[in-house]
Amino acid sequence: MASDSTEASSSTSDLKLQFAPFSSSLEAGFWHQLTQKKLSDYRLDESPKCIKGYYYNGDPDSLPTRLTLEFSAFDADGPTPARCCPAPGTLYNTNTLDAFKATDKKALLEKEAKEIWDAIQSGAALKKPSILSKFILLTFADLKKYHFYYWFCFPALCFPEGIKIIRPPVNLENVFSAVQIAALQEAYDGLCIKRRTTVAPYFIMKYTEDTVDLALLEDWETFFTDTKKVTVGVYDPCTLSQHPGWPLRNLLVLLAKQWGSKLDLVEVLCFRDRTLQGSRSIHHSLIFQIKLPELSMCPKSVGWEKNPKGAMGPRMVNLSECMDPKRLAESSVDLNLKLMRWRLVPSLELEKVVNTKCLLLGAGTLGCNVARTLMGWGVRHITFVDNAKISYSNPVRQPLYEFEDCLGGGKSKATAAVDRLTKIFPGVNAQGYNMSIPMPGHPVDFSQATLSQAQKDVQQLEKLISDHDVVFLLMDTRESRWLPTVIAASKRKLVMNAALGFDTFVVMRHGLKKPMTGSGTHVPGSSLFSNIPGHKLGCYFCNDVVAPGDSTRDRTLDQQCTVSRPGLAMIAGALAVELMISILQHSEGGYAVASSSDDRMNEPPTSLGLVPHQIRGFLSRFDNVLPASLAFDKCTACSPIVLDHYEKEGFIFLSKVFNSSHSFLEDLTGLTLLHQETQAAEPSVCLNGVREP
Amino acid sequence: MASDSTEASSSTSDLKLQFAPFSSSLEAGFWHQLTQKKLSDYRLDESPKCIKGYYYNGDPDSLPTRLTLEFSAFDADGPTPARCCPAPGTLYNTNTLDAFKATDKKALLEKEAKEIWDAIQSGAALKKPSILSKFILLTFADLKKYHFYYWFCFPALCFPEGIKIIRPPVNLENVFSAVQIAALQEAYDGLCIKRRTTVAPYFIMKYTEDTVDLALLEDWETFFTDTKKVTVGVYDPCTLSQHPGWPLRNLLVLLAKQWGSKLDLVEVLCFRDRTLQGSRSIHHSLIFQIKLPELSMCPKSVGWEKNPKGAMGPRMVNLSECMDPKRLAESSVDLNLKLMRWRLVPSLELEKVVNTKCLLLGAGTLGCNVARTLMGWGVRHITFVDNAKISYSNPVRQPLYEFEDCLGGGKSKATAAVDRLTKIFPGVNAQGYNMSIPMPGHPVDFSQATLSQAQKDVQQLEKLISDHDVVFLLMDTRESRWLPTVIAASKRKLVMNAALGFDTFVVMRHGLKKPMTGSGTHVPGSSLFSNIPGHKLGCYFCNDVVAPGDSTRDRTLDQQCTVSRPGLAMIAGALAVELMISILQHSEGGYAVASSSDDRMNEPPTSLGLVPHQIRGFLSRFDNVLPASLAFDKCTACSPIVLDHYEKEGFIFLSKVFNSSHSFLEDLTGLTLLHQETQAAEPSVCLNGVREP
Repeated sequence: MASDSTEASSSTSDLKLQFAPFSSSLEAGFWHQLTQKKLSDYRLDESPKCIKGYYYNGDPDSLPTRLTLEFSAFDADGPTPARCCPAPGTLYNTNTLDAFKATDKKALLEKEAKEIWDAIQSGAALKKPSILSKFILLTFADLKKYHFYYWFCFPALCFPEGIKIIRPPVNLENVFSAVQIAALQEAYDGLCIKRRTTVAPYFIMKYTEDTVDLALLEDWETFFTDTKKVTVGVYDPCTLSQHPGWPLRNLLVLLAKQWGSKLDLVEVLCFRDRTLQGSRSIHHSLIFQIKLPELSMCPKSVGWEKNPKGAMGPRMVNLSECMDPKRLAESSVDLNLKLMRWRLVPSLELEKVVNTKCLLLGAGTLGCNVARTLMGWGVRHITFVDNAKISYSNPVRQPLYEFEDCLGGGKSKATAAVDRLTKIFPGVNAQGYNMSIPMPGHPVDFSQATLSQAQKDVQQLEKLISDHDVVFLLMDTRESRWLPTVIAASKRKLVMNAALGFDTFVVMRHGLKKPMTGSGTHVPGSSLFSNIPGHKLGCYFCNDVVAPGDSTRDRTLDQQCTVSRPGLAMIAGALAVELMISILQHSEGGYAVASSSDDRMNEPPTSLGLVPHQIRGFLSRFDNVLPASLAFDKCTACSPIVLDHYEKEGFIFLSKVFNSSHSFLEDLTGLTLLHQETQAAEPSVCLNGVREP
Repeated sequence: MASDSTEASSSTSDLKLQFAPFSSSLEAGFWHQLTQKKLSDYRLDESPKCIKGYYYNGDPDSLPTRLTLEFSAFDADGPTPARCCPAPGTLYNTNTLDAFKATDKKALLEKEAKEIWDAIQSGAALKKPSILSKFILLTFADLKKYHFYYWFCFPALCFPEGIKIIRPPVNLENVFSAVQIAALQEAYDGLCIKRRTTVAPYFIMKYTEDTVDLALLEDWETFFTDTKKVTVGVYDPCTLSQHPGWPLRNLLVLLAKQWGSKLDLVEVLCFRDRTLQGSRSIHHSLIFQIKLPELSMCPKSVGWEKNPKGAMGPRMVNLSECMDPKRLAESSVDLNLKLMRWRLVPSLELEKVVNTKCLLLGAGTLGCNVARTLMGWGVRHITFVDNAKISYSNPVRQPLYEFEDCLGGGKSKATAAVDRLTKIFPGVNAQGYNMSIPMPGHPVDFSQATLSQAQKDVQQLEKLISDHDVVFLLMDTRESRWLPTVIAASKRKLVMNAALGFDTFVVMRHGLKKPMTGSGTHVPGSSLFSNIPGHKLGCYFCNDVVAPGDSTRDRTLDQQCTVSRPGLAMIAGALAVELMISILQHSEGGYAVASSSDDRMNEPPTSLGLVPHQIRGFLSRFDNVLPASLAFDKCTACSPIVLDHYEKEGFIFLSKVFNSSHSFLEDLTGLTLLHQETQAAEPSVCLNGVREP
């Protein structure tokens, strides 16, 4: 890289013109926007991008000449603040720090300088002089650490022998009368208004003792009749009293190239538009005269910014501490998700996942693990329902609770889970309901109070299910799953169900009934066990031939505790969420045909893989199978007759179920008759929901 | 149940003798011990157990007559506090609240009463009079909530028509002279000393104006020559001035049955051994005379205690708040584990699990999930090594961290993980080391400081591996696994290794070398891919044909982040622990022959199932396979030549590896030669550790 020998110094005895270079000024908003662009648009794309900076003409003395980039930098056509001149830039954002370091800066500079030279030669720069103040920004954004590496370049074409000063810079007020200064200010504003712009970066100028006439560069030929001495103006961000700022450099090259041989003397006005004691003032503008050398071929260029140590090198800014932590957390979490799309699963529809409202019935071992996996997937709307308090045995297996939560009788799980999610990720929208779910065989007609509480609980549950997209059944009894199964089937909500044995689990999606009818006709191509479409799949109760009842009475401690291998809930909880995600990615969602174990060798139906009906896991042999089964027309939960009674009678029907023994539902659905007809059938009825397929 | 019509009342005009019943007094220590017994010994065993209570004879007036059970109740032969009389009891601890309620109390009382009657009839009660003060305790311990339900019974045989008072009770000092009282006290103490006991619950007595003579019941026939009037003594815990306590009841039945027809008059001394104004006093003892009715057949019995409301019913005590919370947490966690043994896996050796010291290299996504699963299994000794700080994207995927941990640049993962484990379970013994693991291809010879830091890191890692039983490799680069693989192979420690792809993972145990030699000869019955014994299994590097090197340089963001489906780490972390647990349960531990997918149909080698070499999981198809492979004699980590160099040269050898490119290890192991020989071989070399088997 050529070192820049023409920067400003304090010596004024030198008769060569020196320019004050730009200092880059990058606001946090710029890095925020770059982060967003990188995540959402650029991803791994390293091609150059158009951005926009600006320089301000209103700074008081002694401030460095800044080129500022803020959040608006990526909106190249957007507005610029008052008294700021936009500068077009090219962003080179690399994917790695190594690529950043390895970028050929000399070549980059030469390429940009060549483009400026070409625009000067062709005259394009006359019509679009902003090309003279182009810049380059080379960046690498380490979005894991919020470290941003960058290096600015303000390309300037150089006269090989420098520029001879004929009359050194002086304040405008030393040369112009007050009348002339007022006329200049009026003329400048008039030019901007006429050209419908807020600032004119460059202009040409004629003046007499009481008039000032301005025009744009493109009007040169008609404006100047005599070119022995011309006056050009530059909107100058520099605050030094002896030196112009950087934007003048390429203008002078333009003048030399276009009219160099004709120009004896060039007078330069550095138009400085300040505010002094509350009033606008252009008195500090500089004016000086120079002699431009001839220029034929493309000259050398300079422009890479020095770092704060004064050496040629990049800068780094660490924003991890000054960015708003909650916003940082949100963008960091987004990052991990969006990374999936960049290379691995470009078709992943993250919006479908992130916007899914999930209702978790049960905030125990399964509920905690499901919630954590949902958080990892960026799901923001999570609601818990549980009526239990946190006991001392919970924290080591239920990863949203701690020892402190157990003290004083234990916090409510539903609300403690919400508190924990908020501590993990403040941007989550979590709610908790400390309530019971009425159950078959657990009578509610003891008293009017019990009855009306049950009715309230049913109404609350109905509302919650209506308000969510996916219902997770994560309770520890079979019968507590009955009511939400019925309501969700009636409301056509996707149900994800997980249940644990000691070292076995089932994770399943319930069949999602079609909006009009629950049964439908036989779909060609599907059979009893394969290619079953989502609306014909069974629910948790479809395989059972007894109705749910009170299964907690008379159980010993090991039966009450749902004793399971500690890793099991993590696996089942994770799989329940991953299965939901895969279903959401399927174009048919919950209606998708169920994948089976046999489909493992086939092309998967979604970008994430299979969408089975059930995953039945066997930890003792580290194996999963993927059975699928049809809805059962005598099912005690999702059969048409049950849904029909529920939809017509509502709580009247439900309270009959709560207050009755098995036989009520079994009589209703025809199971009783079936039992009588098939008394010789297999006697094995498993109550814990985990059965060999 | 017969209601008890003979309890004490304030009326003294009634000529029938009334007795003050016992109040049960159960100390928290008793429930603690019951909890322990239930968990460790009884489990689901409901058979009656011998326990021991005691009653105190030193209470001041107005206190109820208490039968106390404390922690010592389960040590039937243990000592009893001074001036306390032991009472033998039978504990009926039910497994369910329903069984507690359904227990036939009448039958239980009648059974105990019959045993007392039989002992009275046979004369056994004479030799062992403590049988007369037997009690029954019926309990149900709800160890989930620390609610204890109980019901006491102090069986008393009843004279159908009651007992006629001939001379009402008066204080001893109204009848006895000071000399007699002193003689009585001396005689009582003499009897205890002679019988090597602290108290005599019952005794017989003769006295003159200046002498008192005592003997035990068994000496009746030789002691009394004349039985027209006898004096019997009872060690009386009652403080009422007009009534004896409960222990007298069955004694009178004994007297009536044994000598009833011979006895005209029975004088009863209620021996009350109090402390008054700092001095021992038996002055408040009662003395009275009664006439015993005849008794032939077994009389009715009473004895179930009334509850505080005065009704016949059980009591409940809620100890969840008054027990020491940390102790509660520990016993609760133990409970969940022990429950597995009660019914599901009786042969489970929990001690092997709980006492295993686990070293977790990496406290990120995998490390957090592994630690949580270990906690669930009751592992108490967990040590983390990590050099990273917690960043904003971590908490939603790394379940030991929260948003707060990210502020101010982020806490160290290793120490924050320890803090979190302690918050989850205060009884854990966790340590954290914020340190780097030196890696091949990451030179350490930049400066003397770097070099000596690397040497310290190696020494620290060597010490940590020596001090633990199992080493988990949970890092996010391949090369960081090299050094711990070498050290652990050399030290013969079990290594569990987990690595993630996007939707695939590998969980494996490294081969565990035999103490003497790393290679060994071919074991009959094992082949290349089946029945491989543990000491011949490969390590993480055995399948690779290039040495580890710097894999983090020049990676794009998605490669650096180890982007994976959020549920994957939970599954892999859980499986890594579950695999370790299964291996620990195998009699040969890490030397166990590797199970394969084919073994899924066979009888499993441990109570928990298979012990594969590797679990390779494919989340897109919800599938796991269980490949096994032999150690590779040119492995860059565990081959004999590498271990040999490490053991002989130590850090000199290691620093060569850190500072060199791939070729150093490849030259050393012969891989270079192998490459040259097999240049036509398959070109696919995968670096992320997850490959199709």
